[in-house]
Amino acid sequence: MHRKYFHPLKNKHIRINDPLFGYYSNMIADTVLQYQWDILNDRIEGVELSHCVENFRIAAGLSDGKYYGTVNLDSDIYKWLEAVSYCIESGKRNHLNNIADEAIDLISKAQQPDGYLNTYYTVEKPEERWTNLVEGLELYSAGHLIEAAVAHYSATDKTVLLDTAIRFADLITETFGPGSSQIQGYPGHQEIELALVKLYRLTGEKRYLDTARYFIDYRGVLPNYFLGEIDRRNEETIFPEFKNYDLKYSQSHKPPVSQKSIGGHAVRAMYMCSAMADLALEYGDEELTAACSSLWASTTEKNMFITGGLGSSGFLERFTTEYDLPNDSMYCETCASVGLMMFGQRMASVTKDAGYYDAVERALYNTVMAGINADGLKYFYVNPLEVWPDRCLPSTSMRHVRPVRQKWYSCACCPTNIARTLASLGQYIYAADDRSLYIHLFISSEVVVEEFGGVRVKMVADIAAGGIIRITADAPVNLRIRIPDYSEEPEFLLDADLAEPVIESGYAFFELKSAAEIKINFNVKPRWTAANNRVRSDAGKAALIFGPFVYCLEETDNGSNLSAAVIDTDVSVERGKRLSELPGNMPVFEYDGYRMDSGVSGLYGTADFRMEPIRLHAVPYCLWCNREPGEMIIWQRVRI
Amino acid sequence: MHRKYFHPLKNKHIRINDPLFGYYSNMIADTVLQYQWDILNDRIEGVELSHCVENFRIAAGLSDGKYYGTVNLDSDIYKWLEAVSYCIESGKRNHLNNIADEAIDLISKAQQPDGYLNTYYTVEKPEERWTNLVEGLELYSAGHLIEAAVAHYSATDKTVLLDTAIRFADLITETFGPGSSQIQGYPGHQEIELALVKLYRLTGEKRYLDTARYFIDYRGVLPNYFLGEIDRRNEETIFPEFKNYDLKYSQSHKPPVSQKSIGGHAVRAMYMCSAMADLALEYGDEELTAACSSLWASTTEKNMFITGGLGSSGFLERFTTEYDLPNDSMYCETCASVGLMMFGQRMASVTKDAGYYDAVERALYNTVMAGINADGLKYFYVNPLEVWPDRCLPSTSMRHVRPVRQKWYSCACCPTNIARTLASLGQYIYAADDRSLYIHLFISSEVVVEEFGGVRVKMVADIAAGGIIRITADAPVNLRIRIPDYSEEPEFLLDADLAEPVIESGYAFFELKSAAEIKINFNVKPRWTAANNRVRSDAGKAALIFGPFVYCLEETDNGSNLSAAVIDTDVSVERGKRLSELPGNMPVFEYDGYRMDSGVSGLYGTADFRMEPIRLHAVPYCLWCNREPGEMIIWQRVRI
Repeated sequence: MHRKYFHPLKNKHIRINDPLFGYYSNMIADTVLQYQWDILNDRIEGVELSHCVENFRIAAGLSDGKYYGTVNLDSDIYKWLEAVSYCIESGKRNHLNNIADEAIDLISKAQQPDGYLNTYYTVEKPEERWTNLVEGLELYSAGHLIEAAVAHYSATDKTVLLDTAIRFADLITETFGPGSSQIQGYPGHQEIELALVKLYRLTGEKRYLDTARYFIDYRGVLPNYFLGEIDRRNEETIFPEFKNYDLKYSQSHKPPVSQKSIGGHAVRAMYMCSAMADLALEYGDEELTAACSSLWASTTEKNMFITGGLGSSGFLERFTTEYDLPNDSMYCETCASVGLMMFGQRMASVTKDAGYYDAVERALYNTVMAGINADGLKYFYVNPLEVWPDRCLPSTSMRHVRPVRQKWYSCACCPTNIARTLASLGQYIYAADDRSLYIHLFISSEVVVEEFGGVRVKMVADIAAGGIIRITADAPVNLRIRIPDYSEEPEFLLDADLAEPVIESGYAFFELKSAAEIKINFNVKPRWTAANNRVRSDAGKAALIFGPFVYCLEETDNGSNLSAAVIDTDVSVERGKRLSELPGNMPVFEYDGYRMDSGVSGLYGTADFRMEPIRLHAVPYCLWCNREPGEMIIWQRVRI
Repeated sequence: MHRKYFHPLKNKHIRINDPLFGYYSNMIADTVLQYQWDILNDRIEGVELSHCVENFRIAAGLSDGKYYGTVNLDSDIYKWLEAVSYCIESGKRNHLNNIADEAIDLISKAQQPDGYLNTYYTVEKPEERWTNLVEGLELYSAGHLIEAAVAHYSATDKTVLLDTAIRFADLITETFGPGSSQIQGYPGHQEIELALVKLYRLTGEKRYLDTARYFIDYRGVLPNYFLGEIDRRNEETIFPEFKNYDLKYSQSHKPPVSQKSIGGHAVRAMYMCSAMADLALEYGDEELTAACSSLWASTTEKNMFITGGLGSSGFLERFTTEYDLPNDSMYCETCASVGLMMFGQRMASVTKDAGYYDAVERALYNTVMAGINADGLKYFYVNPLEVWPDRCLPSTSMRHVRPVRQKWYSCACCPTNIARTLASLGQYIYAADDRSLYIHLFISSEVVVEEFGGVRVKMVADIAAGGIIRITADAPVNLRIRIPDYSEEPEFLLDADLAEPVIESGYAFFELKSAAEIKINFNVKPRWTAANNRVRSDAGKAALIFGPFVYCLEETDNGSNLSAAVIDTDVSVERGKRLSELPGNMPVFEYDGYRMDSGVSGLYGTADFRMEPIRLHAVPYCLWCNREPGEMIIWQRVRI
């Protein structure tokens, strides 16, 4: 019913069989979700305690005890359920159905009679509901409940979770708004807004959309709600770092529509922007669209790491200033890159411009994929572009950077966020509007497009072979195929004949009159990439890029002290042995380089630099730290 | 009476007339101490509130109100008084006498009948005295009271402050110790130990020395006192960052004598090491001496910035791991370098080895001097080696780095620490034992050595001219003159004749039989210095050093984006116009270099590096940020 924009296709109609992404998405269904469920149930030893399920049991009156964990912990089970729902919808591992039902039953029992649902406030502070929107994150968790419910209903047609979510959503739409009996507040962590848009799209109930809009429109309006709330709470905070609260941290210093540059907490920012783009589209609001464009440009053209990572400050997980992109001390939270994918997907939907997917792809292929171990059982929260493990110490400025993936986190937002993203990859690969099927990412897969009479489109995408893409359709269909930023003079064959498709907003357009095969050669080559001069951290350095993949050097291949590695950008980059022990059978690149030696045996001494030739071996960043842990570096010093 | 080690000479017998250091030490007496007194009295507008004097007034019952400020705030007035005392002793600005007496009168009135003296506990928590040694810092402030009292008595022979300090010291020696009725605790921030040694040396009372020794010996002994205390306080903390207290932070994880490598909070570490060296000397304790040597080597050979700065982590102001010396995000607290001077001075005294003064000199000439503005009215707490002001933002990881000196700080330990150090510079220049006068630093000055029949020694030291030092003595005297690490084939003339003095433990020894003149040419040249390969932050970079002075590039001379500056280490470094607008009339160095350009107009793009020749202008780091503020960098990229 919403054909004005393109929309993702149903998971159940997409099968991913890519050597890299197929491996990961199957792993989510086969291994990861059961493992995460066990962790949420505190059944895995030697892991940071979750207590998530137990909190629900306590809130439901099924167990005694105290709430344990960060205030947003409920969202873990919701994001996990969302991921489970996508797997169920894909027809994968239907055994997940049973544990999903068990979880949903428990969640519904923890709901209060009036629809309120938050285990922290129910167990610990029942009288303080909605009194600490800045930190309490009730609305954040509610958003993830709604997203899970929409996904579960879409996957199963079961209504228990959806009913639960709607009861809570109805309470929220009644509680918050401009009315005199309502709270004129908005969430400390954006998320509910985009969830309400999803609920609106599912149910057609306009009040959800309007409340989402309310939360965006009233954010940062004067007198500032948060300042009033902090005052009412006598500046008592749950989190010590929220003393002297900086409104910019939560993008609540002025209304989002007036925000021209991105700032504050990166995940909050990306979730807000995603909701803004949803609303811009639903309301056809050009002012909001312009704000989104401006925030997108600020994000991707001035504040994004080459890995699609976001957040330059370890403290408060936030953006800092334009071009401040420190490779070792940054944050680059996995969730922020998931948020960037969401924002870009929505911007492409609003504008029908393929260009947004360049950053979506960069984020997915690098930071998001790096966030999970090849066995699915360990995760990065922070994704450094350069690591010297010895300095990643507790109780120091580097305490946020872990040199190896961890089994779980006390604030474990990322593991389930990765799971729900990889379990619903199809939404980023394909989309449709009323006329065309859009192909956004080059991940081997098949799709059956119900909307177009069940046409079956199959894609075999081989980036490793240099970006050779074969797309076959078994019936007439209009295809719009994104031309990525890394393609160099792409060549198109239609049924073996050279073709020169119309290129429109970054898409190559094919109007197939019958079953056909399109073959594309994107001419992907390893390329030395540099950063803008203003990025002080990357001055005189280059990163090796191969299509959407950023490559890195690891200690296990190149020895220690990677800061001393030097390269020539005109050197021949050759293919080494494939990484057969890791998924995707990805190429390694080899090239001649140097190792600098200062000639100083003490701590300081007369400079007497030498260069020793060495052979360097680069691997895809998304697979780093899957072998012997150690140092890693993306940006390599260039001999100039 | 303690002739087994060398000891500093009395301030009143030293006159500093160096163009650089004379300027600063006069400025302390002429301007700074009155200004700091006004700040301590909250009389200066637009400055971070001190409330120090007001806290004493409240504790003395002379004013109503609440305590305000960090728990260690009392120490500000004590360090200020210590500085005032040195100025009085030097015969400078005797008007300071009156305000010192006023301050001392107030301090004595705030003392409790049993000798206890701490305004925070007296005003806020009289029942909780000594219950939070980890954070409460009562013993730290007590130490500074004692140091001030020793200095004031030595300067004036007045006993009011000394009596006050002794009453408190006596309470402390009674309260703490191994006895069953005593507290088996020790300070959360070391300082009292070295103060008690000073009090012992003044009074000859052994109990002060023994309590100092007790504090060092029992530190970190099992069962750990701090862990017990934290437990007794139910883990309640004054400072949120002390949750999950890391014993290594305060060097209380094991006894100091067993600590082989430096770690934890840098100022705490340096003050502890200084006390250890004092005790090693007083007790002739070889085990303690060995521990000191090991900690000194760990500090200066593996954890020291080239500026003599210490502390690699902004969070908790602490050491991290060996060779982790990040130039932009480090701490390098001014106080830590003052502490390094203290430690080195004492190690030289224990060992009679001149080599310790290389680091003392490095710390003084760079970090400590950089800590104060040329007008004396602004201070650095954190001393970066590289600054890009745009990224030094509040509520981010870089919030501790201020790109310009500040008028005051909420925790204002550094301004008064600089004042007391610069007001007593003579103790670092000269020392004596029973046979010789030692010359440690090359700062133009005169000294009259009472111990050696009033011989007058005059030094005219011109580092700027290449390290030309003239030392004249008007009577026979034994001189031991330190040969600094930066001297290259030093040449000695004795009364215009070439001399070849015996070199012993880094000292050139002259046994002058009559009045004489020694002329030394240390052949100081600008030198490109590199760091050990293991220092990742300095890989492929060099710093320009001229004798003890580290040089840096400032934006005002070299344009912005100093990370893009590249140098050849074999380029000719020439003298530019002297910095006549700043004290010391120091040379600027000029050399040809390059500016890199990545050729990328967006955020990332194909690397196409170019180098454009430019002329670079380096100024002494100690004078940086005294003209137009902006970027600054010490370590410059080398073309290799």
